[in-house]
Amino acid sequence: MSQPVDIAIVGASGLVGEALVEQLDECALPVGELHLLGSAEALGHSLTFRGRNLRVREVEDFDFAKVALVFFVQGSEAIFQRVQASERLLVDLSGQQSLPLLVPGWSAPEALARQVATPASSVVTLLGALAPIRHLLDLQRIVASVCLPVSAHGNAGVRELARQTAELLNARPLEPRLFGRQVAFNVFASDEHGFEQRIHAELLALLGQPGLPVSVACIQTPVFFGEGISLSLIGSRPVDMAAIENSLAGADDIDLITEENTPGVVEDAVGQARISVGRLRAVAHDPCSIDLWLVADGLKKGTVSNALESAELLIKHYL
Amino acid sequence: MSQPVDIAIVGASGLVGEALVEQLDECALPVGELHLLGSAEALGHSLTFRGRNLRVREVEDFDFAKVALVFFVQGSEAIFQRVQASERLLVDLSGQQSLPLLVPGWSAPEALARQVATPASSVVTLLGALAPIRHLLDLQRIVASVCLPVSAHGNAGVRELARQTAELLNARPLEPRLFGRQVAFNVFASDEHGFEQRIHAELLALLGQPGLPVSVACIQTPVFFGEGISLSLIGSRPVDMAAIENSLAGADDIDLITEENTPGVVEDAVGQARISVGRLRAVAHDPCSIDLWLVADGLKKGTVSNALESAELLIKHYL
Repeated sequence: MSQPVDIAIVGASGLVGEALVEQLDECALPVGELHLLGSAEALGHSLTFRGRNLRVREVEDFDFAKVALVFFVQGSEAIFQRVQASERLLVDLSGQQSLPLLVPGWSAPEALARQVATPASSVVTLLGALAPIRHLLDLQRIVASVCLPVSAHGNAGVRELARQTAELLNARPLEPRLFGRQVAFNVFASDEHGFEQRIHAELLALLGQPGLPVSVACIQTPVFFGEGISLSLIGSRPVDMAAIENSLAGADDIDLITEENTPGVVEDAVGQARISVGRLRAVAHDPCSIDLWLVADGLKKGTVSNALESAELLIKHYL
Repeated sequence: MSQPVDIAIVGASGLVGEALVEQLDECALPVGELHLLGSAEALGHSLTFRGRNLRVREVEDFDFAKVALVFFVQGSEAIFQRVQASERLLVDLSGQQSLPLLVPGWSAPEALARQVATPASSVVTLLGALAPIRHLLDLQRIVASVCLPVSAHGNAGVRELARQTAELLNARPLEPRLFGRQVAFNVFASDEHGFEQRIHAELLALLGQPGLPVSVACIQTPVFFGEGISLSLIGSRPVDMAAIENSLAGADDIDLITEENTPGVVEDAVGQARISVGRLRAVAHDPCSIDLWLVADGLKKGTVSNALESAELLIKHYL
């Protein structure tokens, strides 16, 4: 279906919105008119699309009948309900709502619906790494420690880390704003904003293994972009490590790193469309389980790519 | 036994040596003469002990018969063998050698020997958190992700992070030296220096559960001091969470943090003698396991405190 599709983005200004517009410009979606919507401080911001400046307009005034598909990045409950009621095709990136989750490449065809949600970026990353090897494990438990970048809290998180870091390096008094605590040069376990609970719930829903014990720990780390996930996949059937390596190496969206220099978020994740998998290793005394380290650009590869691929599927199927 | 004990520290200049001298000054050990020993670049450094400046002397010239106890922080294999052969009481902090491990408060009395080793700081931290609750779990597996500070690589690591951070913040070209890569604002899985293997081997030796599956991942994070450990303790008998909380809360060297602000290395670990335990939680669908987050000053609480407590035991038992 290559008829141009008119699209609206609700909550277009901000890290996720900007990344979405940027990738929309580069991807194969047949975009007709693009409407950038927001409210309050967002109005007046403009983003570049196809060489033109597009202004963010007031979402309250917008008639969604004008478009075929909506990306809902952020916005009030009331706006969300209006979008839902408009019956436009909808991809929700906001994490607030309970539309069925869609992860192209993972979800079964029956998961397709006119209105879907994109899960947390860490979930997309984790399932991306699991997809090629799931059949090679008899999965009994997942333990994941997720190192979150400050960009998980948007542009405000990025500015906060830069400011705090400069304050500390220049021996100026620290004035924590966004996090209410020191985030520069610090690590702390974080369940603020319910990230962990969201990752946990979404993983269970998408794995389709109710009752699977899943331990998720989010750790706030002083990095700007990119997430690192320390992952243990615990099984009950002996694994074939060579087969696992081959499957990972052969997957389109995975870079399997086998050399000594392990993947880091800066070198291997930021701006990359692929998941980097490294430190794949057996667990001593347990032939059924494996440990690995993943890095990915949660913003680009996790959230935005998943949303764009979902939109492609929706357009192909429903328009 | 409160007769003064003459002590030598081999490899006294450097982060661990400095911390050891500082805590020796504050602790109850009946120190007589203190000899600071090192070689090459270390000579001429001086550290303060009991208000006096002590110079680091050439270890090659030193006759170990002058002292009753030696702390071996770092040094060549040849020096280590000379110290061993001197039959002085010995606490090895260097991690290089294979003396029996001693963790006071964990190790059984039979573990005591005239010459012992202190395990990796993360092992001391982990066992410190496990000690009060081990009897409340039927431990079947441990999964630990350890966020390492740059001080794990000594003063050079600390200087490297500061320098790289300043370079990046000031938009100057990055010149990685120590790590051979960007460590500022980056996270990467790290098995350099064999930290992971060491933690794994020492944990197994000290747990006394041969065949226990233990997954350890070390993550290099851009923090200066303090380690954070995301820990999953997987068991096979339903746990009593209230009993676990009580045991942790009642342990002398643990701060159990139950409020929303989770422990961070900066606020709760650095300079602290106690392990901070937070985010204690059950694992959904698995009543036999728990997840938790630990922070500790690996240098002060992990390595140095363990070495000093070991020395106290050795002095009490053998002098």
